[in-house]
Formats: sequence, structure tokens, C-alpha cells
Amino acid sequence: MGKEGKGNFQLKTPKGTRDWQGTDVVLREQIFSTIIEVFKRHGGVTIDTPVFELREVLAGKYGEDSKLIYDLADQGGEICSLRYDLTVPFARYLAQNSVQQIKRYHIAKVYRRDQPAMTKGRMREFYQCDFDIAGAYDAMLPDAEILRIVKEVFEGLPGWKGKFTIKINHRKILDGIFQICGVPQEKIRTISSAVDKLDKSPWEEVRREMVNEKGLDPTIADKIGEYVQLRGGRELVTKLQEMPEVGANASAKQGLEEMALLCNYLDIFSVLPALSIDMSLARGLDYYTGVIYEVVTEGSAPAVTKNDAPKKPKKEKKKVADEDEDRSNDPTLGVGSVAAGGRYDELVGMFSGKPIPCVGISFGVDRIFSITKARLDASQIIRPTEVDVFIMALGGGKDFTGLLPERMEVAKELWDAGIKAEFTWKQKPKLQAQFKAAENGRVPWAVILGEDELKAGKVNIKEMGLLDGDPEKNGVLVEKTELVHELKSRFARVKPELADRTVG
Amino acid sequence: MGKEGKGNFQLKTPKGTRDWQGTDVVLREQIFSTIIEVFKRHGGVTIDTPVFELREVLAGKYGEDSKLIYDLADQGGEICSLRYDLTVPFARYLAQNSVQQIKRYHIAKVYRRDQPAMTKGRMREFYQCDFDIAGAYDAMLPDAEILRIVKEVFEGLPGWKGKFTIKINHRKILDGIFQICGVPQEKIRTISSAVDKLDKSPWEEVRREMVNEKGLDPTIADKIGEYVQLRGGRELVTKLQEMPEVGANASAKQGLEEMALLCNYLDIFSVLPALSIDMSLARGLDYYTGVIYEVVTEGSAPAVTKNDAPKKPKKEKKKVADEDEDRSNDPTLGVGSVAAGGRYDELVGMFSGKPIPCVGISFGVDRIFSITKARLDASQIIRPTEVDVFIMALGGGKDFTGLLPERMEVAKELWDAGIKAEFTWKQKPKLQAQFKAAENGRVPWAVILGEDELKAGKVNIKEMGLLDGDPEKNGVLVEKTELVHELKSRFARVKPELADRTVG
Repeated sequence: MGKEGKGNFQLKTPKGTRDWQGTDVVLREQIFSTIIEVFKRHGGVTIDTPVFELREVLAGKYGEDSKLIYDLADQGGEICSLRYDLTVPFARYLAQNSVQQIKRYHIAKVYRRDQPAMTKGRMREFYQCDFDIAGAYDAMLPDAEILRIVKEVFEGLPGWKGKFTIKINHRKILDGIFQICGVPQEKIRTISSAVDKLDKSPWEEVRREMVNEKGLDPTIADKIGEYVQLRGGRELVTKLQEMPEVGANASAKQGLEEMALLCNYLDIFSVLPALSIDMSLARGLDYYTGVIYEVVTEGSAPAVTKNDAPKKPKKEKKKVADEDEDRSNDPTLGVGSVAAGGRYDELVGMFSGKPIPCVGISFGVDRIFSITKARLDASQIIRPTEVDVFIMALGGGKDFTGLLPERMEVAKELWDAGIKAEFTWKQKPKLQAQFKAAENGRVPWAVILGEDELKAGKVNIKEMGLLDGDPEKNGVLVEKTELVHELKSRFARVKPELADRTVG
Repeated sequence: MGKEGKGNFQLKTPKGTRDWQGTDVVLREQIFSTIIEVFKRHGGVTIDTPVFELREVLAGKYGEDSKLIYDLADQGGEICSLRYDLTVPFARYLAQNSVQQIKRYHIAKVYRRDQPAMTKGRMREFYQCDFDIAGAYDAMLPDAEILRIVKEVFEGLPGWKGKFTIKINHRKILDGIFQICGVPQEKIRTISSAVDKLDKSPWEEVRREMVNEKGLDPTIADKIGEYVQLRGGRELVTKLQEMPEVGANASAKQGLEEMALLCNYLDIFSVLPALSIDMSLARGLDYYTGVIYEVVTEGSAPAVTKNDAPKKPKKEKKKVADEDEDRSNDPTLGVGSVAAGGRYDELVGMFSGKPIPCVGISFGVDRIFSITKARLDASQIIRPTEVDVFIMALGGGKDFTGLLPERMEVAKELWDAGIKAEFTWKQKPKLQAQFKAAENGRVPWAVILGEDELKAGKVNIKEMGLLDGDPEKNGVLVEKTELVHELKSRFARVKPELADRTVG
């Protein structure tokens, strides 16, 4: 072992990366487990792909963002790159294994060699959390289930119920509208990209881009403006279907029929109240072929969401925009969105030549993390560990033995019973230091051993003050032989929020 | 989106990596959750470090194995490498944040650009699963807790109870023995490395290496041979302590005192029966300073464990050596070991100049996975998903509506109640196809909807044949309004092994 590593460079993580630790990682794991529970409720299975792929797998999938791909050094052998997202590895997996049908979820880190901006939450290593359904099924059924999953995830997260909106559109409706307005076929994708900026730029600016940069006829741009500012509930579908020029366009007609069917299904699934059909939603990525959606939440929207939307109060805006912990830079998400996705029926065919229809959603967990953290109120403590019992020795003075074997023996008994327990790794710990350790760990119960009590076959159980109005704050003596039973009956009695040990 | 990715190269994962899928990933997650539960029972917290580190952080930590480190390409900016293990990033984290005390666990992939040998299980990307305790405490208490964790992990895994042995030694005892035998100080590390090979080579071969390659006096080698073939329980400590030359050596004396104290603690923790004090255990890594240990299991040991040990029957050996799924090439593990670790009090000081005492264990989860998989008997099914209920429509013929809205509405009701449920995404699915889907997913219950039953407000619950002797295999009609209640009471009734949904 050499000495080269010692002290002659700054100890840090690489630019754009961070260590996750403490209650941050506890809260993040809680969010993961809420999301995974929903995924499993819908029959999701996980696959785990390597962190790097052959460079050829990633080539030609990300357009000009390909420059952000991290390459491994050429140390001989295959040329590889770190994954840029989870969707392309998923498509590679489907094509490679000729998988025809799967509901898969994947929660893993992805890598983008972007200019990091920690204060804006743009990181080079961040989590993606994807659920995708591959396979040919009857129309809009998997799409409806994906949106039901979105609803269950956000209703399951603490502080999110009723505070999210699913913005939805359909590529075929959008393409139809562009045709109706007279956008030349070859400009449809680039005009669509311009429209997608409406969530962060006012209409005037988007119009200017269309006309000045992309050479669109100003009258065509104005017509587009009329459509893309439409938004509403299910009635918007009917309204559009009743417009003669829309009804006459094959692409728009098909898109609207699918959207109407989807609304029927979402009605049954109770998702409709959270839905906002929004003609300005276009989504940046080229590969979408059907419905597209983004989830926005109170406070996650940027300052300028729409040219006609009233600006949020400055304070609200600042709170999020300056939020140092909003870590997501996921460009697959729109500005201010916390989840996004859509149908992409052609991507797998890029690998195998045989397309497999797919529809999916990607949750921006880093952004969801920072918003959830901000929404937890002071009374909702996050426990740094899951330890339920701290075993202590009562005593002091020169005759104090420290009761180490006795504490160890009780710990062993509790561990045998599956109880999470700790004691201080000292022969003769001070009582105050033991209490301090239990308090720092927010351990709800102490088991206190004393020489005299042990001789009488008894131990003291003390509630540490985390539970409201517990009558046993001053401790109760119980039979040592009954300790496990006594503790378990207390665990069963506490409020369920505390019982699940993390978000109180 | 370009066409470069299409079909003009072999679709595969990079050499030495694989996709994890299907019941393999279910079993692996089950193993992770068993291990994490034990870690949390002992107050463990997790930290999550980046997958790559500044190259300087890894430099000088792995000796000649440094050539196996994966480097990122130099695309401008910092020079980084993929992590090689979880221990060095942990030491970097402790030094960087001046953390004085922590019990941390970390389960993550590490990367080694070794020549992969899939059939021997040598991979370039594989999981490590580490638990480490950092901090200055009274002697041997954290060490004892680590070994208690080892016991709980292996007793918690299906098929492992009573089938593992913890081999233990102490660097100070070993160093003392080398001094007693007359090994020159500068040769102690290299002779120690030779001794470490005793788990895969016979003594004659190790002796030859010491004498011929490392220039050790043959009489010294023979003396070493007498000591390193000693093994036994706690009584071996006393036996060694009573040898006058050992008692007179300061290093051996201290090591034996610590080992005796550790045995006292392990006795209280009921770990002693699984312990084998083994003077041939040396461990390859330089940084260990105190106790060192390895866990071996039936069938995980290589063909030649000891020069004097009887060879295992050929069949037994072959079963493991040819096992295509033994994926661990973790060189921190000995050959045939499933977990390994020890005390390393100096590593953190390499970064900060301020040593923090540490002791830890690394579980070879890939190897544990393949052994656990082989031990599951045919009756222990692994369910590919956690879905408990498949909702079906009964019917056929030309009047069959498919009952899609009804199936969706029941699904919504079950999801609302937190029940994991699926239905077929078809307007008019065939009954047989629905049963087939439920069977493929090993879904334990079907809820079958029929036109007539629905009119009478009833639905049919059918047990799908996974549960032994269930009287309801032919189905029972229940009130539709009571469906959630009826299902939940059935979930509560099933065997606990099936209720935990994975390993039956």
C-alpha cells in the first residue's frame, strides 16, 4: 500500500456528484419504497442492467445531447460508455432477449457530463425511476394503467395528496394541428420542439423562435398560437372533435379518439380529476409516438409557465428556484415537472428491426425528494436509524461494574426476537452519555438495567419522549423474562406513523 | 434520432457484465432485504457514494491490482475512475467529513477490469455488501457485534442455518508467530501472503513458495508449518497462551488477549459455536491490523482446503466449480468464502492523517445468491411478481362483452385497498388466456367476474392451486361489496412462507 493517496489533494467527490447520507438518505429510501410498492401493486418486475453499455448501443439515440455521454477510457477491449438514461438500456434488453411483453421498473443512477450547477440541482450523477410497459395490447389500456400508477405514487407520498396535476397531450393531435395550421411536414419536429418551450418561455418568445429562427410563416405561427393555448378537462376532447378542420385531419382524429378512450378508462380509475389536457405540452424527445404527459406540482412550476398565467408570488418562486437540494437535471422532464413520459412504439425497433410498442413514465426522484423534504413539517421527524430500543446501565461511582455482560445478554435476547436494539460499546458508560446516544438516534424506548432490579429479576422500560402523552415516560419495571413481550406490545400500541419508523 | 444504432452490431452487454432479470433478481432482492434487515437491527445507516471517484482517491490503495481499475475517458475536467470496492470510498467519506463514529452499510456495484470468466463467476461488474463500524470504542466490542451480524445474516437466509463457519485469526498473533519462527521483519508481509494461499494450495506448495521464491530459510518455513496448521475453538487461545515462546512475544500476547476477550463476548452473543480459530487464515489485503475473518459454507470451499483435509467427494466439488452462476470474483474474499473482513485501524489516516479505527465485513452477495439458489428445493417456488389477485372475466361466445369496465373497476377497488392485482389488457380476453397469465405469474388468487353473478352482486374467488389443501380451489361466491375484506382475510390465512411472497 503506497502513500500516494495521502493528503496531497483535495478530498471531495467528483464535480456534479455527491454523497447521500443521514436523514436525506432515509427520506429518499422511504420515497423509493413508496414508489416500488406501487410498481409491485401493478405487477411490475425489476431488471438490473450494467452501469455501462457498449458505446454503439447509445449511439444515435440522444441527438445532440450525445456529447453529454460519459465514455470509459479505452484500456483495450470493448469501447463502453456510462448509461445516459434507463430507457435505451431497456430497449436494448428487450431487443436482445426478444422479450415481447413486460412491465418493468428500474431505479438506478444515470450519468450526464453536463456543466453541473449544484445550486440549480443540475447533477452529473442522479437517479432515474422508470416504469415501462412493453407489448401489444388493446388500445390505451397500458397507458391508463401508467397514469393510475402516477396517481397512486403521488397520493402515497407524504404531503402530495391533491397537490399534483397530470398534464397530457398526444403526439398525433399535435401533429394534426401543425398540419391544419399549414406547417410544412419537414418542419413539424422542429416546430414541436419550439412549442415544448412554452412551459418556460412566454408565447411571444416561442413565436419569435418559430418565425425568426425556424423561418415559419407568421400567420401559421399565429394559428398555432390559438391551438396550443387550449387546455382543459375531458370536454376539450369533444370541443376539438367538433371543430370541422380538426375532425377532417386523420392524425388529429385518431389522436382524439385515443384520448377520449383514455379518458373513459381514467374515469373508471379515478384519475380524471388530476388530469389537464394541455395542447402546449409537446415533450422534447423525438421518440414519442402517442400520448405524452408530465406531472407538475405546486411550487415545482417555474416562474413563467404560460404567457397568460399570473406569475406566482415572488416568495414561492424563490423558495424553489434557489432550493439548493433540487437535484434533478433530468432533461427528459420538463422544467418544473416531477415525472414525465409517454408512448414510444418505435424505439425497440431501432435495435432489432422489430418494433415493440412501449409506454412508460420516469419519476424525477431527486426533485420529488427535495419537494417532499420541504413539505415535511417540523412535527414530522425522520429517524436516522430504525433502532427501537437502547439498552442502558444505571449506575456510577467506583463500585459501578457497567453491567456490560448483562447489557450484551439483553441485546442478544432482543436481536433473537428481531428487535432493533443498541447499547454503548463501553465497559462503564456514563448514564448521561447513554441517554444522549439514544436521543441522538431518536430511539423511542430505553431498557435500563440496574444491579438491584436485576437481582429482583426486573428491568426498567422507559419511553424516551418521542410519543405524545405516553403515561410511561418515567419508566415502568417489568419482569426481565417478559421483556420481549412487553416491548412488542408497546410497539403495537404506538401510532402507525411512528411505527413505520421514518416519516412521522 | 439517427439510424446508427440499428442492427449493425451484436446486441449484448459489455464483457464481464450481465442483465439481472426474472426470478434471479427476485431472489437476489430477497437476500438483500434479509441482510439489510439485520444491518438495521444493529443500528446501521446507509450512505450512497458516487460510482466514480477522483482517480487520486483510489491511487495507492490496491497495490498491483490497481491495473484493474476502470478509468473514465479524459473528456476535459477532473480525472475519474469507477470505484473498485466500497471500503476506499467509505474511508474517503469519513476523512472528508471528519466523521468520528458511524455504523454504515452500503450495497452497491463495484468494477474490476479483470479478465472475465463467466463460467467461473468472475465478473467485471458485481455487487458488494459491506457493513463497517468506525470509531474508537472499548476493545473488541464492535468486532463482536460484526460477528453477531454475520451469524444473524446467515441464519436468516433460507437454507443456511447451521451450514456456515466463521474462520478467524488475528494479525498480531500471526505477526508474533512469524517473529517467533524467525522470519525477518521485512519478509513478514510477503510470508503472510504465502500463508494466505493455504486455503487453496497444499502446505508443500506454500512451503516451496516461501523457500524457493521468497528465500525463506527452510527450517523457519517448517516452524511456520507447525503453527499455521493449528485450528480449533476457544481452547486454542489458551493453548497458545500457555506456549512459553508465544507468551513471551509481545505482539502474539496482545493478539491472544484480544482474541480471548472476543471469545467471551461471542459466547454471550451465541456466536461461539460457529467460530473456528484458524492460524492459516492470513487475508490478502495489507491494511488489516487486528482480527481477520472469513465465512465458509458447505460446498463453498474449494477442492483443496488444507493439505491434510480429506478431499471432498468429486461430485460435490464439481457442483460448485462448474456452477455457472457463481458470479463473485471479489478478491477481498478468500477462495470459497462467502463473507470476509477484519479490523483496519490505519486506512482512514491515509486520507486525513488522522486514523479512525474501523472494523467491517463484506458479504459476497453474488456467491451467496448462487449457493442459496442451489439450496432452494423444488417445493420452494419463487414468484416472479408479487401480484396476489388476477381479475378475470368469465364468458365467451358472440354476446360476451368482455366485462372490461367491470374488471377495471374491481382492479381500482383492490388497488385503493393496497392489494396487488392485475387484469388482462384486452377488451374480450379468452378465459383460458387469463388463467394462463395468472399461472405464469404464479398469482395465488383469481377473482372471476360473470354477467349473472355481477347482476346478483356477487363475484367468485378462486384459489389458483398454489396453496396446499385449500378447500376453495373450486371457487366460492362472495358479495362484491365484501370482496376486499374477503381477500384480506384469505391473505392473513395463508402460510407465512407464502405470505412473504418470494421464497416459499
